[in-house]
Parts: sequence; C-alpha cells; structure tokens
Amino acid sequence: MRFLKGHGTGNDFVLLPDLDGRITLTPELVATLCDRRRGIGADGVLRVASFDGGEADFFMDYWNADGSLAEMCGNGARVFARYLVTAGLAAGTISFMTRAGVVRAVVEGDAISVEMTPPKVYGVSTATLGHLTLAGAAVDVGNPHLVCGLPASVPLESLDLTRAPEFDTDFFPAGVNVEFVAPVSERHVRMRVYERGSAETMSCGTGACAVAAVALRDAGLDDGTVSVEVPGGQVTVRFEGGECWLRGPAVLVAEGDVDLRAIGA
Amino acid sequence: MRFLKGHGTGNDFVLLPDLDGRITLTPELVATLCDRRRGIGADGVLRVASFDGGEADFFMDYWNADGSLAEMCGNGARVFARYLVTAGLAAGTISFMTRAGVVRAVVEGDAISVEMTPPKVYGVSTATLGHLTLAGAAVDVGNPHLVCGLPASVPLESLDLTRAPEFDTDFFPAGVNVEFVAPVSERHVRMRVYERGSAETMSCGTGACAVAAVALRDAGLDDGTVSVEVPGGQVTVRFEGGECWLRGPAVLVAEGDVDLRAIGA
Repeated sequence: MRFLKGHGTGNDFVLLPDLDGRITLTPELVATLCDRRRGIGADGVLRVASFDGGEADFFMDYWNADGSLAEMCGNGARVFARYLVTAGLAAGTISFMTRAGVVRAVVEGDAISVEMTPPKVYGVSTATLGHLTLAGAAVDVGNPHLVCGLPASVPLESLDLTRAPEFDTDFFPAGVNVEFVAPVSERHVRMRVYERGSAETMSCGTGACAVAAVALRDAGLDDGTVSVEVPGGQVTVRFEGGECWLRGPAVLVAEGDVDLRAIGA
Repeated sequence: MRFLKGHGTGNDFVLLPDLDGRITLTPELVATLCDRRRGIGADGVLRVASFDGGEADFFMDYWNADGSLAEMCGNGARVFARYLVTAGLAAGTISFMTRAGVVRAVVEGDAISVEMTPPKVYGVSTATLGHLTLAGAAVDVGNPHLVCGLPASVPLESLDLTRAPEFDTDFFPAGVNVEFVAPVSERHVRMRVYERGSAETMSCGTGACAVAAVALRDAGLDDGTVSVEVPGGQVTVRFEGGECWLRGPAVLVAEGDVDLRAIGA
C-alpha cells in the first residue's frame, strides 16, 4: 500500500492516497499503521479520497491513531492540503470535505492556512496540576478547552504534564483539553497543552485557536492576529469578520510502500 | 534518501542501504531520522555498508536514536540480516562486521538466530522499585545486567516501570540494565526490562540472554534452550558448547524515500 508521512508542527500523519476508493480502512488497520514500532507510526491516518458533491473534490477521511474516527484536525488539514498541492491535484484556495463539513485551505509557500470553527469564550473554570490551581477561560472550538494563564512566577517549562490536570467534571462532563499559557507580548503567547483523554502533545490546532481567542479578548480586540508558540513549532491565528484561520507549516517527509502482511494487517 | 523500516520484537530501526558508501551519517542526521514525529521514527539506524576485510562482506553501522554510536544490538542484527536476505545479498549463514566484531546470523524462515556474547553470571546485587526491593544476579553480556526474579505474589504486569529502578551504584558504576522475571516453567520465562539510561523497552536482546543464562543456571544446566517472552514478542536463547544464540522474528514493514530537506537534515 502506497503511503506518505508528513507533519504539521510535530503532529504527524500517515497519508493514504486513495482517489480510486480502493482502500477499506478499519480501526485495526489504522491502529496497526499508526503503531510507532510495528507499523509506520503516526498520530493519525489521513485517507485522501475523492468527493463528488459539488462543494469539494476531495474528502479528508481522518482517523485517530487508536482507530477511532475524528471529525476534523487543524494540523491534519494542513498536511492534507500540502499533499493535494504537492501531488498537483489542487492549487491556491482549496476546499475539501471533512466529517465537520467543508474546510477551506490556502497555501502560502511553506505555510498553509486552514479555516477553523470560530472559538467561543463562554465561562470560567479551574485546573489543578500538583499543588498549582489555575483559573482559566472555557472556550468552545467545536471541542471543549480550558485556557489557563500562568503567573509570571511559574515558568511554562516547569510544568509536569506527564500526568493529567484535574478539572471540574461538572463543568466539563465530556472532558476538556487544558492549555497552559505564558504571554510573550500582547499578541504573542507560548503554550503547552494536555489533550483530552490523551497526553501532552506537540501541537493542538483547536487549542491554539482557543488560546488566541482569549489573548485577543484580553487585548480588547475582535479582529487581529496572534502568534502562538506550541512545543512543536509556531502557528498564527487570524480573526477577521467572524472567521478564524489557523496558519502554520506542513511538510511531507517520506513516501513509500508499506507491506500490510508484514505489519500483520 | 532510500530507506526501509523494520523491527525485531518491537525494537524498530531505519535501514539505510549504502553499499556504495555515499551516505555520511552524523549524530544530527541519525536523531532527525529517528524523530518519531518529524522524521521516520525508530529506536536506531542501521546503515548497510560494504566491508572489505575477508571475514565479512557487510558492516552493520548501528547508531542509537539519540545519535550516539552503539557496538552491537541483537534485535538490530536480526533486522540487518533480514534485509541482506530480502535484498538477495546473502543467504543461509551470514557473517557481518559490527563494532563488537564479526557476528554470525542464520535465517530460519520467519525467525533469525544471531550469535551473541555468552553471558557471564558474576555476582549478586539488589534493585529497588518503589517499596519493592529485589535480589538479582549480576550478568555481563558485554554490557551490565541485573536479573531480578519476582516473588509469586508480585505480578509482572503490576510493576511501575515509568520510573527507573534504583540500584547499587558502587556495584554498577557504569549503570545497569534491570530485568524483572516471572517464571512460566523451568525453561520458559516472562520478562520486562528497564534499559540503562533509557526507559522500559519492548525488547532487549542482551537482556533476554542474561535472563536465559540465569534460568539455565537455576536449572543446573550448562547447555539448553530457554524461551523468553518480552513485551514485544517471544525470543529463544540457545546455549551450546560455549556459544549463545538469540533467535527471534525480524520483519521489514515499509520501504521508501525520505526527503532530507523536509526533515531539516
């Protein structure tokens, strides 16, 4: 089976070109491909499928590494768009279908911008990490986030995110992604994120959007651009006329054939 | 750059065919290739080089994922031999050079046997994991091991190996690999291993040999075969006439091209 491997700010994917619709993905096959020692290894699989609905020519069939389906992934969408452009299948502003609806992406050299669900800041809650309890802003980006600003006395690097932060399970009954934020300047922040039901990750697209939305609100602005440093690199989030665009790098690093028999699929 | 990916009992490697000697490896390039999100991802790199010294036709140029050099790796040697056979470069009993000298390998279907340094059981020491202090046998397999048998009341799966076991640093001034062993029958054991300066791993070739040597000694035997279940699968260790052979699976799962510019190398 032909595959490519790529990543956006350290969030990595196995891409499976499948415009003919010949590949049948199963949770087991996805988990096997994503196994970092026995398979290719990735945070998820992006099957590149055709779409025949007028609004888009391609369908981003995104699966998490554990074999579960996911609606949308900002970093994955950039890698997906990078593949379409590199393969000569699309150019300029690209529209493709996802389980969360049509997504627009714009290729700008090494960076790609992807249209995201506009974040809604809707409340206040707290997260506890060891002896540290922090207040944070609850933000809905299609999925739940809690954006916690750090006091100047606590360096971002000092946080132990090998264990999950505790949060108010009445406030977030479906769990929450927790972002820890250190300001650099008014519209430039650094963050780390503990993803819901997972672990600390190199990058979280919706998390960056949530953090940027809170930074902009704190600056008293509706529109503007915020630079967000994540452990895996740097992204920028632009708010304009009710739209939210996440811009960041996306690279394809390898291409080849995987032996399905050898990985036990 | 052309690459293959393979593993032996979950210990995985990037192979770089380089019979022309065109590839110059650096610690940075190795670490970048082994980066599991930004590169291909592996526990180490095996460059397949030519050797022109009479005793062997190939040199296994083995590097750890962190870019350091390593002398020998039992799981890596199986994957290296699998490549030579699959590529039609060798067959039957294969000899190749490593930094630890000439190594012999025999391909037997899905399994490959590799000649290892015969383990020497030379002393007794202890390891402490949380509230549990265990006596163990010190074993030299070219590198230091401490093989600790578990009491029947402590299940192997219950051990928390997310942190390093404590050991006697006077006894092991250069550190030690610690094996935890649960017997299944006289010559069949299950083990987990915490590798020196690293973490728990799926498999450790020299560790399996150390564990098998202790099991055989406990059975009062000099020669014989011991089955060792590691987290990544099953290997067997055979002692015969002063030789020690490690037998286990080795598979190549993928082959392709990696874009060195894209991984930042």
